[in-house]
Amino acid sequence: MNRHNYIETPLNQPFIENRADPFICFHNGRYYFTASVPEYDRIIIRTAETLSQLRETEEMVVWKKHDQGIMSHHIWAPELHLIKGKWYLYFAAGDADDVWAIRPYVLECLGNDPVTDPWVERGKVIGADPFSFQDFSLDMTVFEHKDDLYCVWAEKVSVGKKISNLYIARMKSPWELDSQQVLLSSPDYSWERVDFWVNEGAAVLFHGDKIYMTYSASATGACYCMGLLSADVSSDLLDPQSWKKEREPVMETMEEAGLYGPGHNSFTQTEDGREIMVYHARQYDEIVGDPLYDPNRHAYLAEVRWDGELPVFVPLVVE
Amino acid sequence: MNRHNYIETPLNQPFIENRADPFICFHNGRYYFTASVPEYDRIIIRTAETLSQLRETEEMVVWKKHDQGIMSHHIWAPELHLIKGKWYLYFAAGDADDVWAIRPYVLECLGNDPVTDPWVERGKVIGADPFSFQDFSLDMTVFEHKDDLYCVWAEKVSVGKKISNLYIARMKSPWELDSQQVLLSSPDYSWERVDFWVNEGAAVLFHGDKIYMTYSASATGACYCMGLLSADVSSDLLDPQSWKKEREPVMETMEEAGLYGPGHNSFTQTEDGREIMVYHARQYDEIVGDPLYDPNRHAYLAEVRWDGELPVFVPLVVE
Repeated sequence: MNRHNYIETPLNQPFIENRADPFICFHNGRYYFTASVPEYDRIIIRTAETLSQLRETEEMVVWKKHDQGIMSHHIWAPELHLIKGKWYLYFAAGDADDVWAIRPYVLECLGNDPVTDPWVERGKVIGADPFSFQDFSLDMTVFEHKDDLYCVWAEKVSVGKKISNLYIARMKSPWELDSQQVLLSSPDYSWERVDFWVNEGAAVLFHGDKIYMTYSASATGACYCMGLLSADVSSDLLDPQSWKKEREPVMETMEEAGLYGPGHNSFTQTEDGREIMVYHARQYDEIVGDPLYDPNRHAYLAEVRWDGELPVFVPLVVE
Repeated sequence: MNRHNYIETPLNQPFIENRADPFICFHNGRYYFTASVPEYDRIIIRTAETLSQLRETEEMVVWKKHDQGIMSHHIWAPELHLIKGKWYLYFAAGDADDVWAIRPYVLECLGNDPVTDPWVERGKVIGADPFSFQDFSLDMTVFEHKDDLYCVWAEKVSVGKKISNLYIARMKSPWELDSQQVLLSSPDYSWERVDFWVNEGAAVLFHGDKIYMTYSASATGACYCMGLLSADVSSDLLDPQSWKKEREPVMETMEEAGLYGPGHNSFTQTEDGREIMVYHARQYDEIVGDPLYDPNRHAYLAEVRWDGELPVFVPLVVE
């Protein structure tokens, strides 16, 4: 297998099957992959020396859901982050007795190897105001910038049918906020309001003098798509006016490629440093039943190209 | 009484005492004044040929709260608008059995004289999505622009302690929305988050090529203050990106003038066409009990001056 042998067709051949909300990080020459599994019952990690090898390497279970109480249902969208030398897993989870009581939780690895070393639970992320993590909240991602740690998450507001917004805050530790929440984005446009009014699944990419933040919008069917925020790296990231929102989605269903409902992405890079976007999509748009329980969201890769200051995501296939 | 005899001291001499959320409109050479009364039990209108005369003219009760059910408690912040030749009153009200179930309601005048002609209830404002007017919602104002009627209101979101945001929508009639809600502003900054996270009391002023929207922020004590949004008149007012929010408040407590917690304003004009801002404030900052039930929010006037494209509100006293 040639590690640079990327081809661009057939585009809807999955990178990794049946793995949604895919997340890949690259550290010290190793790739780590995690994602939601269709059973929503555990956190898995795959590791390999090349992106391609992630496809066939063994998948390890590093944490399983509890039998009851918090973290016992709907184990969603894990992300693996190395923060000041320690590994953390961020994920969302419900309670078997209240399966939609979704909140963000944190695990910390006691050793240097996130696949084989033990993990301890640091519990639910702790807010710094009366509003954060009070309702359905998930998809926490974190990033460091100028010595500060920030997190971004999605949380629903309103009563009855609800609206999922994106919030940012500064953190004082990997599981505790230091600042009050700041509203970054609400579903403003028609493409963010299909079936459900949703902004979720934020992912951060530093490029040039800017910080880019993709997010996913609308319900989890073929209408699912990706929007984009960006800010100057020199700006105050906790000031919503530092962020510019694109008026149109930056990725959406590509029928000609057979890719439906692309979204919930993360960013990584090839071994030679090219920017890669990792996302999930389906190969069909007709879903029987609740899209959330359709197992066929597969992980895909796209190359990040640039059109001036805007990223363009070009689906690619790793042979 | 000289109708142009405005002096600028003492600044905290009220224009009209014990009237909060003051609203003045000027139509066909007459002024009409309405406001919240401390008892929150009725809607009053004063009318006069000059601004000054509003101070001493008789106040008429045009509508009283119901004994029970909707519109039976907390009658707040009436606004009088002439829309395509008919008079409407917008106000917020709760239910005696659920006093915080505040929603926006509309009255329509059956004649041409809003003071003496009968009013009929058009009921609660009807939304066009599953989110509008589902929770504590109030302070609806309306304006016409390019043949469309728009409304702006405040509504709380979240669970437990809540956040009051500002929304805009296009209307298909004076009591029914035509578009889905669009989030215009959330309390982003520290001055919008004192005691309560609040944006409310929007008021619209067209000036030059811009539409300006003031609003009030924080809890209703001395921390109450005014923020500002603005948009180009040629922009899509339903696109939140058309609106620019000022980073700092445009009016706040002026201790040296003895004016505390200024806010909940409206706009009118002098008889000779100068722009006037009408607001309420207290003469002290130490309030015993809930500020909401302190009756001493008085109506004041300020002149609107301009510093480039930004309005500056200069308190004035009408002799």
